[in-house]
Amino acid sequence: MKWYKIFTPELKELIDSKNFKGLSSILRELHPADIVDIIRELEPTEKVIAFRVLDKTKIAETFSLLHPEEEEELLRYFTEQRVKEILLEMSPDDRTQLLDELPASVVKKHLKLLPKEERDEANILLNYPPQSAGRVMTTEYVDLKTEMSVSEALEHIKKTGPDRETIYTCYAIDEKRILCGVVSLKDIILAESDQKISKIMNENVYKVNTTDDQEEAAKAIQKYDFLSLPVVDSENRLVGIITVDDILDIVQEEVTEDFHKMAAMQLPEEKYFHAGFFKHVSGRVIWLFVLILAATISGKLLQKYSLSLSSMIVLAYFIPMLLGAGGNIGAQSSTLVIRALATGELTLRQWAKVLRKEVCAGALIGTVLGFTAFIIAVIFLRDTMIGITVGVSVATVVLVGNLAGAITPLIFRYLRLDPAIVSAPLITTIIDVTGIIIYFEIARRMLNV
Amino acid sequence: MKWYKIFTPELKELIDSKNFKGLSSILRELHPADIVDIIRELEPTEKVIAFRVLDKTKIAETFSLLHPEEEEELLRYFTEQRVKEILLEMSPDDRTQLLDELPASVVKKHLKLLPKEERDEANILLNYPPQSAGRVMTTEYVDLKTEMSVSEALEHIKKTGPDRETIYTCYAIDEKRILCGVVSLKDIILAESDQKISKIMNENVYKVNTTDDQEEAAKAIQKYDFLSLPVVDSENRLVGIITVDDILDIVQEEVTEDFHKMAAMQLPEEKYFHAGFFKHVSGRVIWLFVLILAATISGKLLQKYSLSLSSMIVLAYFIPMLLGAGGNIGAQSSTLVIRALATGELTLRQWAKVLRKEVCAGALIGTVLGFTAFIIAVIFLRDTMIGITVGVSVATVVLVGNLAGAITPLIFRYLRLDPAIVSAPLITTIIDVTGIIIYFEIARRMLNV
Repeated sequence: MKWYKIFTPELKELIDSKNFKGLSSILRELHPADIVDIIRELEPTEKVIAFRVLDKTKIAETFSLLHPEEEEELLRYFTEQRVKEILLEMSPDDRTQLLDELPASVVKKHLKLLPKEERDEANILLNYPPQSAGRVMTTEYVDLKTEMSVSEALEHIKKTGPDRETIYTCYAIDEKRILCGVVSLKDIILAESDQKISKIMNENVYKVNTTDDQEEAAKAIQKYDFLSLPVVDSENRLVGIITVDDILDIVQEEVTEDFHKMAAMQLPEEKYFHAGFFKHVSGRVIWLFVLILAATISGKLLQKYSLSLSSMIVLAYFIPMLLGAGGNIGAQSSTLVIRALATGELTLRQWAKVLRKEVCAGALIGTVLGFTAFIIAVIFLRDTMIGITVGVSVATVVLVGNLAGAITPLIFRYLRLDPAIVSAPLITTIIDVTGIIIYFEIARRMLNV
Repeated sequence: MKWYKIFTPELKELIDSKNFKGLSSILRELHPADIVDIIRELEPTEKVIAFRVLDKTKIAETFSLLHPEEEEELLRYFTEQRVKEILLEMSPDDRTQLLDELPASVVKKHLKLLPKEERDEANILLNYPPQSAGRVMTTEYVDLKTEMSVSEALEHIKKTGPDRETIYTCYAIDEKRILCGVVSLKDIILAESDQKISKIMNENVYKVNTTDDQEEAAKAIQKYDFLSLPVVDSENRLVGIITVDDILDIVQEEVTEDFHKMAAMQLPEEKYFHAGFFKHVSGRVIWLFVLILAATISGKLLQKYSLSLSSMIVLAYFIPMLLGAGGNIGAQSSTLVIRALATGELTLRQWAKVLRKEVCAGALIGTVLGFTAFIIAVIFLRDTMIGITVGVSVATVVLVGNLAGAITPLIFRYLRLDPAIVSAPLITTIIDVTGIIIYFEIARRMLNV
């Protein structure tokens, strides 16, 4: 049992008996991420009461950690005053994310609750393209002037720090807000107090543009182990930062996208429950439709071989086994190569090494599975020649399937297409066609059918 | 073209002409992660020369970013003195990771190069279980005494900070090194200089044990947005920390493991090239072997239906299409559910909601694909009854396949098994069996075969 389930009955009782003091004393001690776990166990009206006893900062922090559809539901239960408080207290990037998910009419209503400054900012952030750096950045960063001394900088950090998303990486700007350098709090702490920021900052700043894809920011933070990354506009003016904790979420999103692609799905949203039903279905049906058309080729081939098939109907018994084995090993090798390409472990240049490895692996696994299929067929039908036909076919299809699975993503990468599109379903369909040809050509020769 | 490929010819020329000054002036300006990109383009002997012009800290930082097999290769080219320098300069966690990958005899040789203190530490770290928190932690953290004042703490940080992996989260310990609290540099900076650390620290410390799985540390850092996490021994003494940048690597490793499981592989190493050939093959062949045995059931079923099949051989033409469609949609729905379970978006309690959604999606997609299959079959054979049989079968198999793919991971989670084991190959094999039954039972009724 999860720890927070122990709390639930007690919490529900405190809510029922309107013991807000007791409720507050429990929730106050907890991390917002833990409060979210507990709140998920409650009914909507109970959730509203639980939120009531939290202080302003904690409300906003906890609220931001909910899923968008949970936020949407709760907003309907909150009073206008409470909604305003939460929106004001949320950090700009969390606010953008929330408003992003709400229906346009609701967004308009909520934006009206905000003071002009926050409203303008929210509008600007919401206008950046979806999944862009501008859309996920926060505007709560520490900016220093290049001519500040270290002690002045520390004073500035102490004054503005409490509201900032991070104070550990500070950005130096000139009077036009142009980004000039980056300086870590570590460097500031370790420097002499009268040194100028311009002397200790690093002018070699890695930055992204507001319109760049969020994935680019994620890659840079991963590669360089940054805690945050500055975002600039087209004139190189600092407008926001993206922090490492947001990157973990972005990485998970991108991974989910890859998982979906590899199962032949192109979903507009990465969340399971969030996507609308028809978007969900249409993102899934397109590939399935193409693949079922492609499967017509398998049918045509079987028709071509129908004479062999009807003279020896037992050949049909092993078609699912044969195509299954080929498809399965193809799914394995394509997954291995796609994943190694995604993590950067494998580059296109190493194609020959991959080929060598997969020919050997395919031959060895093919031998094992082919021999197994031979034994199965012999036990099944007590006919050695059919056993040999099935065994040799399985071995060949496994070898070919393994190679096809490994090569196809490399070809996609070479053509500058996303290798993750090489889904297991696509490989399976390719192998169905080649597997049928291999099987019946071998059978024709060995069994004279 | 990648930016670093532009540098390569120039760099090679500088190395050829032994212009170390020019070489150094280029490399000095670059981030270690960028130097790694460049160095990968060079020949081994050129790599050694490129490393020679880097200063000590940068050598160790750059070296740590290489893949283990690249490190291993380079170590063979370096002089003993250079190896010693690098090992000494590396942070303890990077050193453990390197030694971890080397053959035992080489490790012994390298450990002898280190002074006793570092050698003992390396031995302790190497003795923690693989993939445990102890194995990936670093011992370079900032520890404060609870009775220190804020200004004393700042002095201590300034003195010890330069060597530490992070100074942004500091850990308060008592005289027995027992972990008492955590305090961020932000809190220290914002506090009054005469306050005691014990007053501003948070005693509610989330920590992991040295023997806990690294994944637990990764989950905590993701959930609570920590920059680092303390690691304690069985007596609650602070022995190390794990930092957020290491977590990004761990997350990628765990994701790769999930990808592999979902393609029916259980590989001992997540890296494509690193795993030994036989480990690689054995990790892949086990599931394939089980699945080919399971495919015997499909064969047995087809034997049972052989009378229908031989009286109407055209039925065989549509077997790959039918089983393909069922397998593909099963791969989709299982991937969706497994991934939603992994990210925590979906919990077991929501099973009814999943079922409703997948029944609707399966029915709709089944109708589309069934109608497509009907058209294909009619064009193919000009026989409406066969067309209807194929169409209805495809629609039914798609609906069933979709449900099977969605339910199986939920059942695995309910049984406390890892849902990621529900691979596309497993689902495909299940659907092969049910698909054949559905197809021939429908055909028997509709076509009287």
